[in-house]
Amino acid sequence: MPALITLTTDFGTRDPYLAQMKGVLLSNAAADVRIVDLSHDLQAFDINEAALFMRAAVSRFPADTIHLVVVDPGVGSSRRPLVARSQGQIFVGPDNGVFGYVLDRSPQVHAIDPVLVSRTGLSSTFHGRDLFAPAAAMLANGCDIDALGPRLESFHRLVFPMVEIQRRTLIGRVVHIDRFGNLTTNVPRGTLDAFLADHARDAVVIQIADREIRGVLEYYGQAKPGELLALVGSSDLLEVAARESSAAARLGAVVGCSLRLTV
Amino acid sequence: MPALITLTTDFGTRDPYLAQMKGVLLSNAAADVRIVDLSHDLQAFDINEAALFMRAAVSRFPADTIHLVVVDPGVGSSRRPLVARSQGQIFVGPDNGVFGYVLDRSPQVHAIDPVLVSRTGLSSTFHGRDLFAPAAAMLANGCDIDALGPRLESFHRLVFPMVEIQRRTLIGRVVHIDRFGNLTTNVPRGTLDAFLADHARDAVVIQIADREIRGVLEYYGQAKPGELLALVGSSDLLEVAARESSAAARLGAVVGCSLRLTV
Amino acid sequence: MPALITLTTDFGTRDPYLAQMKGVLLSNAAADVRIVDLSHDLQAFDINEAALFMRAAVSRFPADTIHLVVVDPGVGSSRRPLVARSQGQIFVGPDNGVFGYVLDRSPQVHAIDPVLVSRTGLSSTFHGRDLFAPAAAMLANGCDIDALGPRLESFHRLVFPMVEIQRRTLIGRVVHIDRFGNLTTNVPRGTLDAFLADHARDAVVIQIADREIRGVLEYYGQAKPGELLALVGSSDLLEVAARESSAAARLGAVVGCSLRLTV
Repeated sequence: MPALITLTTDFGTRDPYLAQMKGVLLSNAAADVRIVDLSHDLQAFDINEAALFMRAAVSRFPADTIHLVVVDPGVGSSRRPLVARSQGQIFVGPDNGVFGYVLDRSPQVHAIDPVLVSRTGLSSTFHGRDLFAPAAAMLANGCDIDALGPRLESFHRLVFPMVEIQRRTLIGRVVHIDRFGNLTTNVPRGTLDAFLADHARDAVVIQIADREIRGVLEYYGQAKPGELLALVGSSDLLEVAARESSAAARLGAVVGCSLRLTV
Repeated sequence: MPALITLTTDFGTRDPYLAQMKGVLLSNAAADVRIVDLSHDLQAFDINEAALFMRAAVSRFPADTIHLVVVDPGVGSSRRPLVARSQGQIFVGPDNGVFGYVLDRSPQVHAIDPVLVSRTGLSSTFHGRDLFAPAAAMLANGCDIDALGPRLESFHRLVFPMVEIQRRTLIGRVVHIDRFGNLTTNVPRGTLDAFLADHARDAVVIQIADREIRGVLEYYGQAKPGELLALVGSSDLLEVAARESSAAARLGAVVGCSLRLTV
Repeated sequence: MPALITLTTDFGTRDPYLAQMKGVLLSNAAADVRIVDLSHDLQAFDINEAALFMRAAVSRFPADTIHLVVVDPGVGSSRRPLVARSQGQIFVGPDNGVFGYVLDRSPQVHAIDPVLVSRTGLSSTFHGRDLFAPAAAMLANGCDIDALGPRLESFHRLVFPMVEIQRRTLIGRVVHIDRFGNLTTNVPRGTLDAFLADHARDAVVIQIADREIRGVLEYYGQAKPGELLALVGSSDLLEVAARESSAAARLGAVVGCSLRLTV
C-alpha cells in the first residue's frame, strides 16, 4: 500500500508556504506517496479549531494514514515537535494541542529530533517545511516513529468540554460554527439520548440566544425554509441550524454561546 | 486505467466535512484511485450554480470519470440519491438538479439503494459522506451503476435558459459572474453567429445596465485597460467583461440581469 | 519516475476554469501523472504576486517538475506562450513576467507553437486550458521542450528590487503581505548580515510606518503576544511581524511601504 499523507494547516493558499511544504514532501517521499489536502483555511493561530477539526476528520481514514498538521503559533519556541501513533493512525506536528482530541487512548508519542530529520538545517519560523514535512516523508518511506526521537510521557491533551445536567435541564455550548451557519454544540448523541430517555423527542425545549426551539428533528428538510431547528449532526453532536439559511446569523451566535435544554 | 473521481461541493474547506468524505473514499476505493478536487467553494445550497459549474467542467474529462457532486440542501428528505451514466461519464449525487445540464441525452439513471452501499449506517444529514462517497468508491472499484439500485425513468433536468430573438433584437441574461467580474450570459456562440449573420461583428450594440457596448471582440486585450467589452468566452457563451477589471462592479450587475443586442 | 505537474493560477475555485484545465491535463497525460495544486488564490491579474510566489515555491520541488502557471491578463494578445527549463525544473505559462524571478540563469526558453500543441483549436480567452495544459501534458509524457516551438533569445525577466545602503542606513520595502499579516521585505539574509556585520543584532533600529522596532529576533515566540518584531523569515528575507497578530493591520502597511534600518 502506498503511503497516504493528509495536510491540514492555517496557511491559506495565497502565500507560498503550502507550496514549499508540498515540494519538500514530494522531494523526500517515494514517488507513489499520496498527498491529500484536508484544509488550509483553518483560522490563523487557532489551535482549538484545529483540534476540533482533527477530532472530526481522522476516524474516516485508512489505518496508518499520516496526518500532518501545522497550526503552529509557537514555532521556534520551546514547544516540542511531535510524532504519535494513536487510533491506528500517525500524527505529525507541534505539541501544542492540535492533537489534543485524537491522542486520547494511551498513544505512543515521540519528540522529533531535528538532527535526525532535517538535512538542510532548521529555520526558526517554518517547522512545517523544515521539520514536519521531512519527518512525514520519512514515515511515508517506512520509518518507524520511534526512530525519529525519544519517547514522550507527557504531551498536550484537551478535554472535550462537558455538558452540565441538573434534573430536567442540560446546559451545553457552541463549539464550532460551520460554513452554512450551523452551530455545533458539545452535546453528544449519547448524552442527549440519555437526557431524553423518558421523554418524547419533540417535548424538549432548546433555549439559545433568547430564542426557543422545540423538539429535535432528524434532518434539515423537516423544518420550513429559514426556520430554526435542532438535530444531531453528522459528527454525532447536537446542532442548531436553520433550513437552507444561517442559524449563526439569525441568532447572532458565536463560538462559546451557551444553550439550555429543558424537558 | 486507475479510476478517477472528481469532487465538487459547497462545503468550503474550513469545516471537516470534505475531510470526512475524502477519508471514506480513500478507505473504500482501491489504493490507485485518483481523487481530484474541482471546487469546494460553490455557493452554499445553490443548485443552479452547481449545475452550471458541471455543465462547463465535465466535457474535458477522460471517459468514465466519476463525478461526485454534493450540493444538497434537501439531504435526508425524499429527494433521491442518484447515479447516472451520460456523455460517457458517471455522476453521483442528489437528484435535485445539480446534474440538470449534464443528463441531457437519454442517460442511464439509477437511484442508489442505501442498503447496498452504506455499511456503517446512514446519517440523515450527511449523505455526501455516508452514501455518495461509498457509492463512488464502489464505482471506482469496478461496480456497474445498475448494481447500486433500481433504474429511474424520471429525474431532475434543467433547461438552459433560452434567449429571445425578435427581428434585429436579441434579449439574453447573465447566468454567472466569475471571480474576475466577467458576466457569462445565456447567449451561445452559434446563436450569436446566426443573429449576426448578415452584419458586421462591430455593428452590434449590446445594452446592459444602462450602458452600451459596441461590437464583439476576440480577446480581452483588444479593449483599453478598464474598458467594457463583449466577447465569446471560453465556454462558448457571450460574455461581458472589462479589461483587467470587474465588469460586474462597473455595471452593478448581478445574475439574472438582462442584456439586449441590436443590429 | 511518474511526471509531476504543479498548478498555480489566479482562477479561484468557484468558477469552472480550474476544473476544465484539470480535465485537459488528465485527458492528455499518462494515467500516473501527479497533479499538485499550489495556489488558485493569487490576486487576479497580479503578475508580480505570481512571480514572487514562484520565486519562493520552486526550489523545494524535485528535479524536472513541470510548473504550470496561469496568471494571464494578456491572453489572446501578442504576449507569447512559453516553455522553459531553468534551475533543473520546467515552466509552462505566459511570457508576461510570472517566471521573471525563476528564469535567472541562462535558461532554455521556447515559444509554444499552438499548431504543435492544440488539437482542438485555440480559444482567444483561455490559453490555460487550450494551450498551456496540453503543452504540460505533452511534457509530462516525455516530450522535450524544444519540440514545442522555436527557441527564444529574449523573454520577460524581473529584477528583485534592490535595497539602498548608505553608511549606517539601509532602505528596503515591503514586497508581500501574507495571510498572517507578516510583512515580507526585499532585504535578503545575506545583505542584512553584511549590514550588521560589526554590530550587535539587537542594536539595529527598524523604522516602518512611524513605528520603531529594535533588534532582529530568531522566532516569533521571542516577542510578547501582539508585539511588533523583526526576524529573517522562512524565505530568507527580513520580515516584520507581530506575534500571533497582524503586523499589517497594526501598521496600516501595504505592499510597497518602505522601511529604514539604522545601526
